[in-house]
Amino acid sequence: MRESSLPDLGVGLIGTGFMGRAHALAFHSARTVFDLPVNLRLVALADADAARAEQCARSWGFDRSHAAWQALIDDPAVDLVAITTPNHLHYPMAMAALEAGKAVYCEKPLAVNLAQAREMHSTAKKVGVVTRVGYNYQHNPILGLARQMIQAGELGRIVSFQGEFSEDFMGDPHASWSWRCEHTHAGGALADLGSHLLAMARYLVGDVDSVCADSQTVHPERPALHGSPERRQIAIDDQTYALLRFSNGARGTFSSSWLKHGYKNHLSFEVSGTGGTLSFDQERLNELRYYRADAPGRDGFQRILAGPAQPGYAAFCPAPGHQLGYNELKTLEVHALIQAICGGGNEGPDFAEALEVERLAAAIRVAAREMRWVNVADI
Amino acid sequence: MRESSLPDLGVGLIGTGFMGRAHALAFHSARTVFDLPVNLRLVALADADAARAEQCARSWGFDRSHAAWQALIDDPAVDLVAITTPNHLHYPMAMAALEAGKAVYCEKPLAVNLAQAREMHSTAKKVGVVTRVGYNYQHNPILGLARQMIQAGELGRIVSFQGEFSEDFMGDPHASWSWRCEHTHAGGALADLGSHLLAMARYLVGDVDSVCADSQTVHPERPALHGSPERRQIAIDDQTYALLRFSNGARGTFSSSWLKHGYKNHLSFEVSGTGGTLSFDQERLNELRYYRADAPGRDGFQRILAGPAQPGYAAFCPAPGHQLGYNELKTLEVHALIQAICGGGNEGPDFAEALEVERLAAAIRVAAREMRWVNVADI
Amino acid sequence: MRESSLPDLGVGLIGTGFMGRAHALAFHSARTVFDLPVNLRLVALADADAARAEQCARSWGFDRSHAAWQALIDDPAVDLVAITTPNHLHYPMAMAALEAGKAVYCEKPLAVNLAQAREMHSTAKKVGVVTRVGYNYQHNPILGLARQMIQAGELGRIVSFQGEFSEDFMGDPHASWSWRCEHTHAGGALADLGSHLLAMARYLVGDVDSVCADSQTVHPERPALHGSPERRQIAIDDQTYALLRFSNGARGTFSSSWLKHGYKNHLSFEVSGTGGTLSFDQERLNELRYYRADAPGRDGFQRILAGPAQPGYAAFCPAPGHQLGYNELKTLEVHALIQAICGGGNEGPDFAEALEVERLAAAIRVAAREMRWVNVADI
Amino acid sequence: MRESSLPDLGVGLIGTGFMGRAHALAFHSARTVFDLPVNLRLVALADADAARAEQCARSWGFDRSHAAWQALIDDPAVDLVAITTPNHLHYPMAMAALEAGKAVYCEKPLAVNLAQAREMHSTAKKVGVVTRVGYNYQHNPILGLARQMIQAGELGRIVSFQGEFSEDFMGDPHASWSWRCEHTHAGGALADLGSHLLAMARYLVGDVDSVCADSQTVHPERPALHGSPERRQIAIDDQTYALLRFSNGARGTFSSSWLKHGYKNHLSFEVSGTGGTLSFDQERLNELRYYRADAPGRDGFQRILAGPAQPGYAAFCPAPGHQLGYNELKTLEVHALIQAICGGGNEGPDFAEALEVERLAAAIRVAAREMRWVNVADI
Repeated sequence: MRESSLPDLGVGLIGTGFMGRAHALAFHSARTVFDLPVNLRLVALADADAARAEQCARSWGFDRSHAAWQALIDDPAVDLVAITTPNHLHYPMAMAALEAGKAVYCEKPLAVNLAQAREMHSTAKKVGVVTRVGYNYQHNPILGLARQMIQAGELGRIVSFQGEFSEDFMGDPHASWSWRCEHTHAGGALADLGSHLLAMARYLVGDVDSVCADSQTVHPERPALHGSPERRQIAIDDQTYALLRFSNGARGTFSSSWLKHGYKNHLSFEVSGTGGTLSFDQERLNELRYYRADAPGRDGFQRILAGPAQPGYAAFCPAPGHQLGYNELKTLEVHALIQAICGGGNEGPDFAEALEVERLAAAIRVAAREMRWVNVADI
Repeated sequence: MRESSLPDLGVGLIGTGFMGRAHALAFHSARTVFDLPVNLRLVALADADAARAEQCARSWGFDRSHAAWQALIDDPAVDLVAITTPNHLHYPMAMAALEAGKAVYCEKPLAVNLAQAREMHSTAKKVGVVTRVGYNYQHNPILGLARQMIQAGELGRIVSFQGEFSEDFMGDPHASWSWRCEHTHAGGALADLGSHLLAMARYLVGDVDSVCADSQTVHPERPALHGSPERRQIAIDDQTYALLRFSNGARGTFSSSWLKHGYKNHLSFEVSGTGGTLSFDQERLNELRYYRADAPGRDGFQRILAGPAQPGYAAFCPAPGHQLGYNELKTLEVHALIQAICGGGNEGPDFAEALEVERLAAAIRVAAREMRWVNVADI
Repeated sequence: MRESSLPDLGVGLIGTGFMGRAHALAFHSARTVFDLPVNLRLVALADADAARAEQCARSWGFDRSHAAWQALIDDPAVDLVAITTPNHLHYPMAMAALEAGKAVYCEKPLAVNLAQAREMHSTAKKVGVVTRVGYNYQHNPILGLARQMIQAGELGRIVSFQGEFSEDFMGDPHASWSWRCEHTHAGGALADLGSHLLAMARYLVGDVDSVCADSQTVHPERPALHGSPERRQIAIDDQTYALLRFSNGARGTFSSSWLKHGYKNHLSFEVSGTGGTLSFDQERLNELRYYRADAPGRDGFQRILAGPAQPGYAAFCPAPGHQLGYNELKTLEVHALIQAICGGGNEGPDFAEALEVERLAAAIRVAAREMRWVNVADI
Repeated sequence: MRESSLPDLGVGLIGTGFMGRAHALAFHSARTVFDLPVNLRLVALADADAARAEQCARSWGFDRSHAAWQALIDDPAVDLVAITTPNHLHYPMAMAALEAGKAVYCEKPLAVNLAQAREMHSTAKKVGVVTRVGYNYQHNPILGLARQMIQAGELGRIVSFQGEFSEDFMGDPHASWSWRCEHTHAGGALADLGSHLLAMARYLVGDVDSVCADSQTVHPERPALHGSPERRQIAIDDQTYALLRFSNGARGTFSSSWLKHGYKNHLSFEVSGTGGTLSFDQERLNELRYYRADAPGRDGFQRILAGPAQPGYAAFCPAPGHQLGYNELKTLEVHALIQAICGGGNEGPDFAEALEVERLAAAIRVAAREMRWVNVADI
């Protein structure tokens, strides 16, 4: 590639699974779609399987590969470390990257427990680098519109938030145990799915003061492996429900399940205020439903389509109705990250915000376990 | 009208408001649509306004009118007393009718407090007459199908119930005070709307063991009259949310609001089990959404249309897609009542069931006030 | 029933099938729901089966029954003759009623051929009585709103009409022959279903100048009886498609099928103009979709719910979202008829309008047979 | 980039507009998402504006730029020429590329008249290179499923196709003239939008034998420039409707409009057969609606979500409900093209197929102009 007058920004990516590839795709697309203020270089890819690391590096356009993730972090050309490994590795990798003074882009959840999350946040704050956590759904341009509508008062004073994130990939009682079934890996419906919804609730409505909750393990044992007669005990939540009290006075409900049949990516919510109601379902990610109480014309819920009036959408499609896909939300996340690194924006959740999401999830966990209302600030 | 070989069943109706007329319409339609085992006679109509009583009696085809409701109850040709007056009158009227040994068809809520409800139930039990309470939405044939599907195991073991009944008729902060804003008239979102949803939850999933809840008065004062400068304090809930634990192990959420903009009759729920998911919205009362986990064909939510395979529907329409309306649910309620009186069926909630609904609502009220989980059995 | 100061209007109903009962129900409901300017009396019911006539008369509240329809027409207490018999009987019955100087309420189609329809219209005109034909879908209050929006210019100048009426009751190749499969009984998808859509197109957009069309018999033979090995040849259309040119310059498409699987009552259309688009589907008869081009707020299709702002709806339900059903459209049709008889309105299609619908259907038939554009005025 | 053992495939892209960038994005993504059998190299980018060509080449990762498109074609490292310029340039560019023996990937429409299209096809056939035309909507994995369902007989014998492609970008009468308003640039609703629908009809149902049609210029003059008082006459169709007779016996309708308010990308269709019905709307590109006539379970239209069971989807997303976007259809188109070049597949329309689409559009144009049925074979 030719010389660029722009400063280099070197990316090091750890992990070559589905999410690793999604990151690679997003970095490539960001480079093509946006006029970046840097020369974004895909420097290094790390995977414990050296052969796979090298093969993916080649296919995905990275300059080199590492089998040891620490080597990637130490690579002087790497300015930004992207972490897409299993949850329990987020902490050591992010801490190492922070200690090396590098920007960190970590998949959610931030960590597998609150103590780790706190330490990651305080270290990031001390080091002063840019951090971002992969609550990618927030980067949906139409949710940017939703937030803007809320902040501009188009819904009036917010009165309620009702949110649900359900999928059904664990709906089959014969679905086997996996690391997602372990607390020590931040498994369970609440951590795996619900945390996205909590991040969304905070993004749209703000801080939650207190919660009451109920969690249940519906299938208390599952096959150890697919089709295996061996059974493993499951202690994690299959479904979690909560009541939420927001700091701004809004009230509402939270639902999270990974065994609700029929749902594949049902991150959904309704926000209602004294002036109107907005609703959204991630399974139709390019649409909002909006009802305006004092509509000057006809009365009724309206389907708003994502369109080029939203900058993030315009980067990809020239007209409404053309639709962004899941991966483009990731590209927008990468773009927000690069903007932040270059001092050009503050979009997207950093470690501080991700810690708040973890704290809120932890409060729900306590509330469910102890069957009582819990102040989030006490966690 | 000609002689009929069937025994007479004389109806006395108290109240000439919207619900009174809906009853009149339902009795007429029941007579036309169904082959009833009785000769249903519209004997008497009562309203405190004697002129209005007489005028409505004539228009609606009742034999005579009464200004005093006690006179209607005492009328020897009246076998069945239908009560459509404001909530606080349900108790004295129903008690008088029961004491006169007459069947009682009372609009919901059964009473304005639990003590009344208990007394009404025990009296009805002692007297041994047929009673029914107007939870009319239960008579929707497609919900009969839903219940049958649940009972036949088409959803597997039930895992969750998430229900919401929202409307927006109090959404305008300038909407004025009415009797619906008073606890002593069983007002508030929970009693007015939510009780329908609780009845539905019980109809479909069964007993609730315990609840936790949150209630809020969003607009703590309202104009005393429409457009009036005088303000009245409001103590009733504008929105109530709850967590539910069912006796069969299912968990879930309950939402009730009368100020959620955009919703007009949003009595809605999702019931999910180990084998599938059903959902419904009263705003499209002729449709169910159904997802079957082990569908033999293609995978995806299905729109089931009400149709003549459901007997209650066949009484009105010859083919799916033709649709029943709100009033026809009332006709079906009347039909179930007459069947019960004639010993031919046990459909529809009686005073015993309505008391259970009231008890559940009371438990939610305590849980919200005391911010704790409440066992319904302790109420 | 007590004496009424209002003049009597005596109804005679011919036919005791599904549609006969629907009429009986509608006459009853009209009496209860509306303040009629007459004392509506259900005088006589006719069916060739005398026992059935008498039984239905009793159940449905008619004073007497006749086995001979001519006797019903001759009954001096009958002022209005309602005809719900098979299509080929519409002509003789309506002609007899007209000759007796009585108002006629005839189910659609007006007749089984254009010559009959012309004679019925000219006779009605000469006699000067009120006539109505049962294009009941037009009496949907939300379609009254649609028409009013169109006429008020809310869509701007009308540019297109695209309509479809599909059902699937003949979708099974093994569905047996019936009278609906005969031209001489006005059978076929175009006559049976399509005529409703043509009436709707005229109701909303106005006269059609010219048409081109295509008709097909998909299953050219069917079992003579259900399950019978005997086969009958079918000459009637299973599906008919057309292009329409309206007098006001709008263009569009027409589709009619009775074997399009999945549709049960899919009388649907989109009307689009220079200012917006409206769409409707009879399978959700209480909803309109509306897009306003210069919407002052957010942009997007809106779901308008039927509500009490529409008088016909207010007669039945107190709030939007409660929904009318199929039979209530029939009650509204009866109401419009009675209003017309009493000089209080001109809603609903009379024989003149029904003749125009038949002419338009005939033009489509010619266009399909001769594979050419046809001017409707030439028919 | 490191040495690759795979053969190089050099891409030359002409055009830097929205579609040029979409191609660049698609080539990048294809490289990351798929294991390609070639080393795909982005060799050269051409734009008449040399500075823009160079700037875009740098941003989009092309090795070099050319101001002259012929130079790009002559570039020996270019194996594949992608053409994204205005329609009237497709012919000279594609012909030059074919004459240079290079594979051609041309945006739709193939050409601005049938003579050009014929010559392009015959040249491509003579030269024997791989060609593809950008009917990108066909590469939607869920439409691949639709086609497969049709071909496997899941709908039975196909009886009808009803298709519509409407947008509203010319809905405003004050929308100004552009090259899209000129026949000589293949403008108009039929050519611009309708051709996508015709390609889809052929993809799903096959050859069309004959057509009848109606075209209309709704706004016969428009501002020469946005906001300009100068007016230009418009001769192109704003809306075109047609009746279609397919070779397999199916019948149906075709609608195309660029002024139907509310629609942004409404490429939609219903295909119905003796065994079921499928429908689709590009505005929700990850969903099919399916009704199976002999469904073994419950009866009703089903929403099928795109998912990883479809290979093209699996390349991007791990689960249903995550959704592809518009640009990913383009990536899939590029993938199909590369597969074809490498001898590994035959997906996607080549010049021969694109010529058939043009012929069908031309038949519709003749049918509309001469107001008669036209055999497509006669064009």
